[in-house]
Amino acid sequence: MLGAIRARSQFARPLLLRLYHKPARNAQFKKLTSSDMEFFKRVLPAETILATPAVGGTSDPVELEGFNADWLNKYRGDSQVVLRPKTTAEVSQILKYCNENKIAVVPQGGNTGLVGGSVPVHDEVVLSLRNMNKVRSFDDISGIVTCDAGCVLEELDNYVGERGYTMPLDLGAKGSCQIGGNVATNAGGIRFLRYGTLHGSVLGLEVVLPDGTILDNLSTLRKDNTGYDLKQLFIGSEGSLGVITGVSITTPQRPSAVNVAVLGVPSYAAVQDAFRLARRRCGEVLSAFEFWDQSCMGAVLHHQQLKSPLASEFPFYVLVETSGSNKDHDDEKLGSLLEELMESGTVEDGALAQDEQQIRRMWMMREGIPESLGKTGATYKYDISIPIPVLYDIVGDIAGKLKTAGLYQSSADPVKIVCGYGHIGDGNLHLNVVADKFQNRVTEVFEPYVYEWVASHRGSISAEHGVGLMKRDYLGYSKPKEMIDYMRRIKAMFDPNGILNPYKVL
Amino acid sequence: MLGAIRARSQFARPLLLRLYHKPARNAQFKKLTSSDMEFFKRVLPAETILATPAVGGTSDPVELEGFNADWLNKYRGDSQVVLRPKTTAEVSQILKYCNENKIAVVPQGGNTGLVGGSVPVHDEVVLSLRNMNKVRSFDDISGIVTCDAGCVLEELDNYVGERGYTMPLDLGAKGSCQIGGNVATNAGGIRFLRYGTLHGSVLGLEVVLPDGTILDNLSTLRKDNTGYDLKQLFIGSEGSLGVITGVSITTPQRPSAVNVAVLGVPSYAAVQDAFRLARRRCGEVLSAFEFWDQSCMGAVLHHQQLKSPLASEFPFYVLVETSGSNKDHDDEKLGSLLEELMESGTVEDGALAQDEQQIRRMWMMREGIPESLGKTGATYKYDISIPIPVLYDIVGDIAGKLKTAGLYQSSADPVKIVCGYGHIGDGNLHLNVVADKFQNRVTEVFEPYVYEWVASHRGSISAEHGVGLMKRDYLGYSKPKEMIDYMRRIKAMFDPNGILNPYKVL
Repeated sequence: MLGAIRARSQFARPLLLRLYHKPARNAQFKKLTSSDMEFFKRVLPAETILATPAVGGTSDPVELEGFNADWLNKYRGDSQVVLRPKTTAEVSQILKYCNENKIAVVPQGGNTGLVGGSVPVHDEVVLSLRNMNKVRSFDDISGIVTCDAGCVLEELDNYVGERGYTMPLDLGAKGSCQIGGNVATNAGGIRFLRYGTLHGSVLGLEVVLPDGTILDNLSTLRKDNTGYDLKQLFIGSEGSLGVITGVSITTPQRPSAVNVAVLGVPSYAAVQDAFRLARRRCGEVLSAFEFWDQSCMGAVLHHQQLKSPLASEFPFYVLVETSGSNKDHDDEKLGSLLEELMESGTVEDGALAQDEQQIRRMWMMREGIPESLGKTGATYKYDISIPIPVLYDIVGDIAGKLKTAGLYQSSADPVKIVCGYGHIGDGNLHLNVVADKFQNRVTEVFEPYVYEWVASHRGSISAEHGVGLMKRDYLGYSKPKEMIDYMRRIKAMFDPNGILNPYKVL
Repeated sequence: MLGAIRARSQFARPLLLRLYHKPARNAQFKKLTSSDMEFFKRVLPAETILATPAVGGTSDPVELEGFNADWLNKYRGDSQVVLRPKTTAEVSQILKYCNENKIAVVPQGGNTGLVGGSVPVHDEVVLSLRNMNKVRSFDDISGIVTCDAGCVLEELDNYVGERGYTMPLDLGAKGSCQIGGNVATNAGGIRFLRYGTLHGSVLGLEVVLPDGTILDNLSTLRKDNTGYDLKQLFIGSEGSLGVITGVSITTPQRPSAVNVAVLGVPSYAAVQDAFRLARRRCGEVLSAFEFWDQSCMGAVLHHQQLKSPLASEFPFYVLVETSGSNKDHDDEKLGSLLEELMESGTVEDGALAQDEQQIRRMWMMREGIPESLGKTGATYKYDISIPIPVLYDIVGDIAGKLKTAGLYQSSADPVKIVCGYGHIGDGNLHLNVVADKFQNRVTEVFEPYVYEWVASHRGSISAEHGVGLMKRDYLGYSKPKEMIDYMRRIKAMFDPNGILNPYKVL
């Protein structure tokens, strides 16, 4: 076990990982040979294997492009083989073989991550779960769904939606992200405020360990206190301990009434005041409280071709959503909240969605931000948790540092936008810096400064996006040494050869 | 590490653990000497140590009685030393010393457990957390409280209650159970339906490991995806991996309106129908849905000197509670539910609490059941999770087996009551068998039959009470061998000498 850990710490890594700097390939990992390919062909149906001529296959490397690069095109691997098994037994056979032969493997869901966690770094075999996409069972009384890991979140939400329930998580990438990836990365998203963490709503997991062992903990029980809750370790482990092949999750009743309003807010202090009052007035039906600044709004209106529902511009915008079982009650609760906010001047303008289409458009203003910033330029993304009162301070702070460095003053400078948006109720800010291109003279102004800033407020350098390749060297800013040591021991216990998602997390 | 596991499996244990049968003392554990006592006296203030003359102390063994026996008086140890440290540093020093000297330790909170998990089996040192009972911090905006492990649940609820929040868990033992014990046993209770599991609401833990290492993960962040979520392992580990000394937990807004009704229901099928409709009509304000049978009701009315609010007797009773932010809205939701239930005949009678005192009395009918059964006779308690449709079947099944065995037919037979109550929404039944005394000819009728029955429905042999000493040999009924193997490896990783809460859980 210790051998594997030592081997990894020998990598010739600089103290700080720079953009595009890859850790060196671990020479302990085997390079694929024709006999490996023969094994894969024996185990898997031909149509589930993509292999380039470099490993004796016939696939055009272009076909592997979507598996090798992340959607922001920031991280890129060089895998020559993609395996897309259809059954848990196939996953088990593949992993057992790779483990015995020290072949590195990167498990991949919808590949919608933001920290380089789901793409290979070098020539790891990509193990895609997309062919495992069936609902296994659904219990109509309890609302508990059990399904393959490769089910797409939005499709699952439609499935349970037709049966009167709703998935307890929702995020911008819902159309392509997979539930297994959501669980592996402990995805947060926009319903977190209402339904909480996946550590609470995931009831069971089926996980294949590197040695091929299938851990069957696919429980459908809300309560089960029989020994240590092992499944929790895999939630948020980013595919580095085992491959999640099945998930059972409790889904809440689908709300029959949904209301959405967008508000124009004069200051960040007022955003906090509005949040406090929203919790008090809307209580149990408050299902989202999102905020973003004027820079985000400018980008999203432009790139999504939307029109603001408000008459003028504001420093901050808030989206409030209520979801409940009684439309009249919710209308009354939200109505009295908005009235109170306007009267007190906490909010200066507001618009209430009148129909489904307006609700979708308002959500697009929030959910379209990442894509719109991406279209504006090369986007540095930080996803941090810090105490709510100081949450937005870092945006002005970073802007100031960039100005001082002469990088963000005029339109000729490389940095175009420094902005923030996020989930205020969760203390979670998405800090974004948009530049003309990724370059070190920009990066080094705010990295590791951002992490130091977060650490000084006892925050988290990754609220919901995970560690992946991007933050591996920065883990120490959020977790003490003793905890990282035990994480390494747990990694060594489940994956002694370190074949699963190497170069990531730890 | 493996040495410790092997050593434990060598215990001369019979295949089935019978009541009062203790596993033999592990000879590897040191017997306390005067030099050990001197060390404890050097580290701890004199008033925090209880030691009997057997180990050179001056405490009357009677003073240790409450630490050696559980409250049902079913499990009993023979500890001669109770340590009650006041600081985390003291806990660390004690554990480090005990680990180095192979002295077994049982951590103890409020000692309100039901499975023999919190009392010594032999001469283990009792490490009581009751002197660590301070709130460390409270954040008024987020509702996050950070406190010592020894804070009593009810006192914490009062503390956050004065600040507009409520603890996300509540149980009958709230007046004496401690938050550290709640977390260590992953307590469920009567608010689980609304606020979910502690795996979701606990944000951070401070844990002292057997070697004295203090794992500081006392985060107050709602979201934190930086590496494996180690704290989850300690939630529900029953003090066998480390000693929880600090807890941070998110508390929801205290509801300003609470309604409670007790209903008389003609059948278990109707109980399920009522639950389904309650979820639909009351949705987000439904905070409890408890049920119990006529045998429970008889015992509780008699022993708590209560009067039923209903005009006659029913096979089943249901307590419905709503908690929300708007009294009028909640009244309307609950009112229309009750109307619909009565009109359809699902419910035959019902009473709605008119004031605080009536609410308390109605809750006493449910919460007073365990104590009332305990006063009736020697009570065998099983806490199981099974799919809701078959949840109550086991009560009739066990009664039938006892009748066939000639143990439960006439008033002269040893078994007086076979009954069930519990949390229908969580699929959690408390099956109770009340006899004149604990004896093997009674036990063997339903043990291991109960566990086999649960396993055949893929249920859990411990929904919320834990494993402790009682169910250690039955873990295999709820968890596959591979998972138990990994649990053992995790135990060996954190506690290689096996000093923490030995003879329990695994």
